[in-house]
Amino acid sequence: MGMIGGGIGAFIGGVHRIAAAMDNQIELVCGAFSSSAEKSIQSGIALGLPQNRCYGSFEEMIQKESQLDEDERMDFVAIVTPNHMHFAPAKMALENGFHVICDKPVTFNLDEAYELKKIIEKQKLIFALTHNYTGYPMVKQAKAMIANGDFGKIRKAIVEYSQGWLATKLEDTNQKQAAWRSDPKRSGAAGAMGDIGTHAENLLEYISGQQITSLCSDLTSFVEGRLLDDDGSVLLRMSEGAKGVLIASQIMAGEENNLKIKVFGEKGGLEWQQMKPNSLVVKWLDQPQQEYRTGVGNQYPQALAAARIPAGHPEGYLEAFANIYKEFATAVTDFKNNELKENYDFPNIDDGIRGMVFIDKVVDSSEQGSIWVEL
Amino acid sequence: MGMIGGGIGAFIGGVHRIAAAMDNQIELVCGAFSSSAEKSIQSGIALGLPQNRCYGSFEEMIQKESQLDEDERMDFVAIVTPNHMHFAPAKMALENGFHVICDKPVTFNLDEAYELKKIIEKQKLIFALTHNYTGYPMVKQAKAMIANGDFGKIRKAIVEYSQGWLATKLEDTNQKQAAWRSDPKRSGAAGAMGDIGTHAENLLEYISGQQITSLCSDLTSFVEGRLLDDDGSVLLRMSEGAKGVLIASQIMAGEENNLKIKVFGEKGGLEWQQMKPNSLVVKWLDQPQQEYRTGVGNQYPQALAAARIPAGHPEGYLEAFANIYKEFATAVTDFKNNELKENYDFPNIDDGIRGMVFIDKVVDSSEQGSIWVEL
Amino acid sequence: MGMIGGGIGAFIGGVHRIAAAMDNQIELVCGAFSSSAEKSIQSGIALGLPQNRCYGSFEEMIQKESQLDEDERMDFVAIVTPNHMHFAPAKMALENGFHVICDKPVTFNLDEAYELKKIIEKQKLIFALTHNYTGYPMVKQAKAMIANGDFGKIRKAIVEYSQGWLATKLEDTNQKQAAWRSDPKRSGAAGAMGDIGTHAENLLEYISGQQITSLCSDLTSFVEGRLLDDDGSVLLRMSEGAKGVLIASQIMAGEENNLKIKVFGEKGGLEWQQMKPNSLVVKWLDQPQQEYRTGVGNQYPQALAAARIPAGHPEGYLEAFANIYKEFATAVTDFKNNELKENYDFPNIDDGIRGMVFIDKVVDSSEQGSIWVEL
Amino acid sequence: MGMIGGGIGAFIGGVHRIAAAMDNQIELVCGAFSSSAEKSIQSGIALGLPQNRCYGSFEEMIQKESQLDEDERMDFVAIVTPNHMHFAPAKMALENGFHVICDKPVTFNLDEAYELKKIIEKQKLIFALTHNYTGYPMVKQAKAMIANGDFGKIRKAIVEYSQGWLATKLEDTNQKQAAWRSDPKRSGAAGAMGDIGTHAENLLEYISGQQITSLCSDLTSFVEGRLLDDDGSVLLRMSEGAKGVLIASQIMAGEENNLKIKVFGEKGGLEWQQMKPNSLVVKWLDQPQQEYRTGVGNQYPQALAAARIPAGHPEGYLEAFANIYKEFATAVTDFKNNELKENYDFPNIDDGIRGMVFIDKVVDSSEQGSIWVEL
Repeated sequence: MGMIGGGIGAFIGGVHRIAAAMDNQIELVCGAFSSSAEKSIQSGIALGLPQNRCYGSFEEMIQKESQLDEDERMDFVAIVTPNHMHFAPAKMALENGFHVICDKPVTFNLDEAYELKKIIEKQKLIFALTHNYTGYPMVKQAKAMIANGDFGKIRKAIVEYSQGWLATKLEDTNQKQAAWRSDPKRSGAAGAMGDIGTHAENLLEYISGQQITSLCSDLTSFVEGRLLDDDGSVLLRMSEGAKGVLIASQIMAGEENNLKIKVFGEKGGLEWQQMKPNSLVVKWLDQPQQEYRTGVGNQYPQALAAARIPAGHPEGYLEAFANIYKEFATAVTDFKNNELKENYDFPNIDDGIRGMVFIDKVVDSSEQGSIWVEL
Repeated sequence: MGMIGGGIGAFIGGVHRIAAAMDNQIELVCGAFSSSAEKSIQSGIALGLPQNRCYGSFEEMIQKESQLDEDERMDFVAIVTPNHMHFAPAKMALENGFHVICDKPVTFNLDEAYELKKIIEKQKLIFALTHNYTGYPMVKQAKAMIANGDFGKIRKAIVEYSQGWLATKLEDTNQKQAAWRSDPKRSGAAGAMGDIGTHAENLLEYISGQQITSLCSDLTSFVEGRLLDDDGSVLLRMSEGAKGVLIASQIMAGEENNLKIKVFGEKGGLEWQQMKPNSLVVKWLDQPQQEYRTGVGNQYPQALAAARIPAGHPEGYLEAFANIYKEFATAVTDFKNNELKENYDFPNIDDGIRGMVFIDKVVDSSEQGSIWVEL
Repeated sequence: MGMIGGGIGAFIGGVHRIAAAMDNQIELVCGAFSSSAEKSIQSGIALGLPQNRCYGSFEEMIQKESQLDEDERMDFVAIVTPNHMHFAPAKMALENGFHVICDKPVTFNLDEAYELKKIIEKQKLIFALTHNYTGYPMVKQAKAMIANGDFGKIRKAIVEYSQGWLATKLEDTNQKQAAWRSDPKRSGAAGAMGDIGTHAENLLEYISGQQITSLCSDLTSFVEGRLLDDDGSVLLRMSEGAKGVLIASQIMAGEENNLKIKVFGEKGGLEWQQMKPNSLVVKWLDQPQQEYRTGVGNQYPQALAAARIPAGHPEGYLEAFANIYKEFATAVTDFKNNELKENYDFPNIDDGIRGMVFIDKVVDSSEQGSIWVEL
Repeated sequence: MGMIGGGIGAFIGGVHRIAAAMDNQIELVCGAFSSSAEKSIQSGIALGLPQNRCYGSFEEMIQKESQLDEDERMDFVAIVTPNHMHFAPAKMALENGFHVICDKPVTFNLDEAYELKKIIEKQKLIFALTHNYTGYPMVKQAKAMIANGDFGKIRKAIVEYSQGWLATKLEDTNQKQAAWRSDPKRSGAAGAMGDIGTHAENLLEYISGQQITSLCSDLTSFVEGRLLDDDGSVLLRMSEGAKGVLIASQIMAGEENNLKIKVFGEKGGLEWQQMKPNSLVVKWLDQPQQEYRTGVGNQYPQALAAARIPAGHPEGYLEAFANIYKEFATAVTDFKNNELKENYDFPNIDDGIRGMVFIDKVVDSSEQGSIWVEL
């Protein structure tokens, strides 16, 4: 694995490195960790890489790695830069024969996403998007229960992703994460909706098995002077007749990373909270409420396969993130062995496009006075 | 107290009777418990009333009680009939000099509510509406914290009231509660929104201290053949600049009576769940999350006054309901002593009108294609 | 009902009055509310009683009430005095033909308890002890599941009752509750173990269906100068082979009224917490964990019968307490109608004796150096 | 790192490998994964090791690795075999100059533990014991709060470690984990008490800062024919005057890995549950209950340093385990740089000896009829 972005002081780069390392299948062999060549090399050395594999730019990395022996060179690139810096390195990596795993949202805007899809299809390479919340065992159990019809036809879904860290104008301090996320030139058309709303959208479509078909959104910038939305609420209608509500906010002062979802059908429903990820609460019309737990038997195989350790030993965010990497690594290995399958359980370019469409439409609806728009 | 409605087989009548009895201040002395004279008398006798105080109709009750000595006759009427039967008995009781405590929503439609207000003002009598969820100690703590500015300016509120008991077409069975609630002739313009949406609206305005100023709603009748909405989601804008989401549903199969609210401001926020009513979770930007608990010290006096027993002894729905009756009984006593104050902490006719406006506008918005409407 | 004790400033008297009033079956008609005649009458008048039914002493009350017409006089007495004042009024009431409902522990010492049993048997009257925690619907469900063998043979039980209100020397302030509870002359041989340990013991034997047969206890007075134990831990062996642990403490600073129990058998087990009384968590070897909830269907009839309102409307301490009164009132009515049954679901004199034996043995074991003693 | 034990089918070996890999500081370079040479090599190859570093026995591994260049050879061994196979490889590794990290309990019996301590001291090498539960951030916060006197003098502690997986005679099936754990020849003098009771003992002493000084234990083998205890309850007295209860059970059918602890002092107390590891509930005499959360500010530096990702992204068992490895790796690096400090925050041989003393005394007490014994 070669990493693009994720130098000293970054948050998500470290997460990707731990997730990649966890299962002893992936090794970090090189990186272009910063737009500053000096910082990139500094970061790489701090991470224990040999200096000749610490590159000053992603262009240099891709070019030089291409020239190494197949045994030595990186197998794929992991892109963990701000949103406006996803497309160029993804394009160049793919065009030079490297698979790509990329942070979300997939690109800066929808056009780039469509363009990227064309490149992936042309190059016939593997592309994964780290919508990591789909990696949790109980999320996979939830998806499987709904897909299997355990609750009958799905009627209503509510997904909320609340954070509080942008309740003040943090971007005016020296906080790197806040700075780029609230900057339209680096983040894209949406703030909170792009950063975490897309996670909520992805989780909802993943679990429910339905796509959002129209929406009505009300976005706000509560913090004075902020350039992008820091809060939004959206009414949803979905492809199989369900209705929904999606809320994403980064100004819920005191909230940590409160992503939760409930989906209900004719016979029952389920609730899952990211901050209590090893429990899936299941309710039924006629039976006592149940709590499914990571690793406990009598679950769908997808859920059991996503757990690493016996029940009762809590698995968390990094393990879920690592499940994306693990499945991606499986695909990369299958590719090498000419055994690539049609489907893998990681988010791909189509999920990326869904996310970009969602951002576009959510902003569009709100700007037009919170009217209904079709997706 | 004389009761109108609430005969054998009714749910809410029993709740009112327990709530009224709890504090040894109110005695049930008579009733017109059913539209069938026979059933009314049967119910009254089963409740231990003397036969001459079990009336065949509310008209008879009000008329005959008026003629009794002041010491003997009822002080007020409690109206616990279906919605379409609120206005007439309330009007007649008031016009005959009796105070009224009435179940919600206040009337069948908005016109009746305005008319009722005029009568109350003319008669100068006491009218209380049993939006009982405002009776919980932790709800009073929540309201006081916000009113006192503990969280700074309020930005976002989410209120959800989910039930599952109407997930099937229960009104086609012999279920009395379902039958009238899903019948437009008895329930009014809205189903779930009138029955529980108004509770959510009332709780939100009570706690936040802000009024809903405009809304965009999406109502659905998920159960085939049902005549009124059984589910709805509403985007809200509020009088002091907050934005909100209100969800009310009776088709969340497996949900019991899941009313919960979160309100967040600049410095922190709070969450309360009716099914865990003795806890108020409070979050802060810079401090560990807190759990306020019924009856524990260091709270606002309104909260402490609403608790009956020491901390750790859970108080529930009936105690909260009884708090409405207790405050109403205090007002009735003050009235007798010519010491009526300007404000009491129970919902009144203005809250009733707010509820009816909410129903009207929620239905209006949805029928026009889920557009924004002003309140 | 005539009340003995429970005047102004008392805690448990008010609880008894609310519990008795709740179901509209019992009316407070007289009382001897204090050992001071003046305070007794003051309290009675504040409670709305006519002055001639406010007595200066329990002796006066029992004597004078005996002389009233059967229709007018009290049916039974409720004894809510400190422990050392249970026996005398209970004895006199029974000997004058009145049923008795009495707070726990039943008497000041074991001899009194045995004596009281003789009187009850001779008089053939009804005696109930308010071990109120057995009144919760989910406690009844727990008992029924175990009795029915749902978990197989029971192996292990843990019961803990933690409070923090005596973490400081509250008895040195003017706190009435603390004063008598920590005074060996009014409380008896044990402090925390008598006050709340007996509740834990009663709950454990009620739910498990097994009796404690031997124990090893370690009692402590953590607060300097305190005369009775304020904390204790006890190892237990039980009649059907189960082993257990019982912990009771009033110096767990910050704990409210944290009574909880878990009981496990061969196939699964259950957990119940008094502060979340409407949930019963049930665990199974091979199935997802379940949460039984007050009032939800598919439960044992004893549990459903103990709920007053539909599921999701939390019932609390007062409702559970009222269930004891309700069952007692049923017995009193059955007695009047000469239809007394053999068993009622309220704690009786035998439970009271169990509690006094427990206190004796727990103190005995600890004083002898925490050795094992037989019950 | 070279691993001893942990071949295909083992549980804890995989945990150690993930924990070691997580922070990109430690690389698995060789192993003797099984007592069968064939299986060992098979396992090593499956883990991606070159065949020449997959050894047939730990003796071979230690000997051959010793002869490799310093740059190439393993730095330390990780011992993840059953208990009876800890001492011999630890001794040989240390005597050949390798640091050791070892699973718990440290040895088969107390004599071995004392002997091991001598060797460690003589060799002046690093020895860590994976009592992993001390690696959780909230456990470190708990320890720091108590050490800092936040709760005043500590009075009472309760620690419970409940599992249900041995509720049936699993050792009679082909279950490897159950087989050795219930075999006195491989597990040692105790079953559940050795396997999980020692974790509870270690956690209690770590958090409370007090040592157990005497105990009275009641051990049971509930499953017929089982050779070692599968359940036990222990009364404790501690070095600074606290009293405690320790419960360890593997027959609580339906329990997963329910380790929880509460410790209370004069001013308040804390509760932590391993299955909700990112929350530390803190209670106070005079303030609302608090919930400290992993990674949220205003905590002790030890707690903050143990978190890898921002608040709200749950960290679990593997992260806590990895914290032990991380601190051990720091010590190993410091050793290389001749900068070894006096104290590191990982369990060491003294903790191991405490555990073995605990096992000895707990068994001793129970065998003598559950009497008090001194430690």
